[in-house]
Amino acid sequence: MKRIDGGICAIPGVRAAGARQGKYGVALIAASGVAAGMFTTNKVRAVPLDITAEHLADFGHLEGIIANSGCANAYTGQRGLEDAKAMARLLADHLGTDEKKVAVASTGVIGRYMDMDLIARLFDEAKAGLRSDLQASAEAAQAIMTTDTRVKEIAVEHQGVHVAGIVKGSGMIEPNMATMLCFLYTDADLTAEDLKKSLEIAVKDSFNMLTVDGDTSTNDTVLLTATGKTKCKLEDFREALSFVCMELARMMARDGEGASKYFETVVSGARNEEDARAVARAVARSSLVKTAVYGADPNWGRIITAVGYSGAKIDPAKISLGLEGRGLKVVLVDQGKIMDGVLKRAKEVMKEDTIIINVDLGLGTAFARSFGCDLTHGYVDINANYTT
Amino acid sequence: MKRIDGGICAIPGVRAAGARQGKYGVALIAASGVAAGMFTTNKVRAVPLDITAEHLADFGHLEGIIANSGCANAYTGQRGLEDAKAMARLLADHLGTDEKKVAVASTGVIGRYMDMDLIARLFDEAKAGLRSDLQASAEAAQAIMTTDTRVKEIAVEHQGVHVAGIVKGSGMIEPNMATMLCFLYTDADLTAEDLKKSLEIAVKDSFNMLTVDGDTSTNDTVLLTATGKTKCKLEDFREALSFVCMELARMMARDGEGASKYFETVVSGARNEEDARAVARAVARSSLVKTAVYGADPNWGRIITAVGYSGAKIDPAKISLGLEGRGLKVVLVDQGKIMDGVLKRAKEVMKEDTIIINVDLGLGTAFARSFGCDLTHGYVDINANYTT
Repeated sequence: MKRIDGGICAIPGVRAAGARQGKYGVALIAASGVAAGMFTTNKVRAVPLDITAEHLADFGHLEGIIANSGCANAYTGQRGLEDAKAMARLLADHLGTDEKKVAVASTGVIGRYMDMDLIARLFDEAKAGLRSDLQASAEAAQAIMTTDTRVKEIAVEHQGVHVAGIVKGSGMIEPNMATMLCFLYTDADLTAEDLKKSLEIAVKDSFNMLTVDGDTSTNDTVLLTATGKTKCKLEDFREALSFVCMELARMMARDGEGASKYFETVVSGARNEEDARAVARAVARSSLVKTAVYGADPNWGRIITAVGYSGAKIDPAKISLGLEGRGLKVVLVDQGKIMDGVLKRAKEVMKEDTIIINVDLGLGTAFARSFGCDLTHGYVDINANYTT
Repeated sequence: MKRIDGGICAIPGVRAAGARQGKYGVALIAASGVAAGMFTTNKVRAVPLDITAEHLADFGHLEGIIANSGCANAYTGQRGLEDAKAMARLLADHLGTDEKKVAVASTGVIGRYMDMDLIARLFDEAKAGLRSDLQASAEAAQAIMTTDTRVKEIAVEHQGVHVAGIVKGSGMIEPNMATMLCFLYTDADLTAEDLKKSLEIAVKDSFNMLTVDGDTSTNDTVLLTATGKTKCKLEDFREALSFVCMELARMMARDGEGASKYFETVVSGARNEEDARAVARAVARSSLVKTAVYGADPNWGRIITAVGYSGAKIDPAKISLGLEGRGLKVVLVDQGKIMDGVLKRAKEVMKEDTIIINVDLGLGTAFARSFGCDLTHGYVDINANYTT
């Protein structure tokens, strides 16, 4: 897996641009190809997702994406629907294509109507900049940031095939999926079916194992477009796609709202995969584990507590628990036995800004990994006054 | 329902006492009667709960309770079991009864062994103070406080029957049940079966609808002892018990870790009770709703979002949403329609320290209510450095 520069514009034929004004931004991406998408499981689904899902179902092909930040266009009914369609038309007209070959995505405050005059102005500004140079991908990524503090993009080359993506997502982040907009591109030549299946596999172990605050957004969207210019083995493509999604998930966790530290929870020895995932998620979303990580408090009983309420089958006497950080490693519990004299070392590990929590359930061979961040004063600050 | 003074010692025959040293405390309660208990659903269950559940199963009768704060005696295996038994013996010997008629409860740090010398010293101090005056109940409640900032006790008289309780619980609070120790007493003359059933009914709508941080503790215990001195109608007793549990749940939410504000989520119009409860809980536990309450941000889209991911059957177009606080009332959404010009008033309501969130799903007649508090800098402070 070789990392390359340029984000999504590292894929030949992908152009991008973005424009911002205060909390609002518009990102444009132009690229022609077979496409697949995944959307939020929240029953209050934002209208752009309805539009995009419909377009994908009708054609399975995209010519471009128009996305905005500032307003989620969620819970906005018929008026929101007209606005989302108008957005698709803006880009479709510019590209000279059918509006049904354009995807629409939005992120921002829920329950507010779009300011379509502002969107039109930002669109005009952005469309003039549609290009495929090294900065274009970052400009599009930047345009859809809300509380994100940094651009999140990646591109890789693997056995001749290229996969790249940009993502936004920082708060309202929870499995299935995060509050995230993720736009993935590849030059692989694949059927719509292979694309869809590969996306599901990649999302399952990346974005669906990511949690910032336990809230599943109304607007989550992952779109994958394949330009079809490169023949490749399906397994090579899948490997690259999974790598890209995993790295983007890690970037989102690191940039979680107010996050000062990042931690992965690695669960092994579970009876089955479902149990492993349940434990990994429970630990990652525990407010008590998250605040302990923030305070570098080696209060590992909270981890055991989360394991206990995760719903997975466990035997307390078989659990092993350890912490890792920057080369330091400490075993706290060995098959149910509390280790003596390790808390000082555990405290050292907890001070690191990247921590691995290892939980071995001792019951089987299934494995899972989750991505999370600490719960900090910054999170409270950001979210106590979001709309005001 | 008439409130009376004295907490659990308002029930004739109930004596209480407590002693504290720093983070550690021991509470003693002596009262003879038929008893019922409910315990955590966490699969890592603290050993005192095993002991107490076994004692209740064997006799269904309690002579007393010994409880400590500072150490949860959870995940402590055989050694923890011996310690819990030794605690039961201390009180049993003092009361001249079988140790199997004593309940044991613990709260504090998980995965640490008990300091039994300290427990013995605090026990000796407390036992000298066992009495039934107006302060004794509060003294016992105070002895088991951890991050609680105030004593939580209540006593009522209803149609001649008395019900009273003390409770501790502030963090690691989540339905089924909170991190809580709750000791309830009544003079009602009831069978063990009626007692158990009445307790289940009362807990379901009170402690099981309470959330502070979404973490289900290893140590949750609710014990109800009936001295049997007063004949009463079962329905009168149930009414009083449900009232007492509801009020204690409210006290816990108000005293949630770091809480500055309290809110109830009242869900109506659900298709069935399960859905109503799911929605009420999802709103109460949403970190985004909780931070919005903290910051008095009328960002009601977050409430709709929580409704959407609650798992309940909903129709966005049928939802109505309103806020209430100290006489002020505002409708934000009326059957799916966003109301104009109400955000300023909503902001005023959100500034209140007690807020009611009204969600009507418009699908049926089922109802539920949950109890929650805001997510504040104080919560982060308390939990970032709990053991250190």
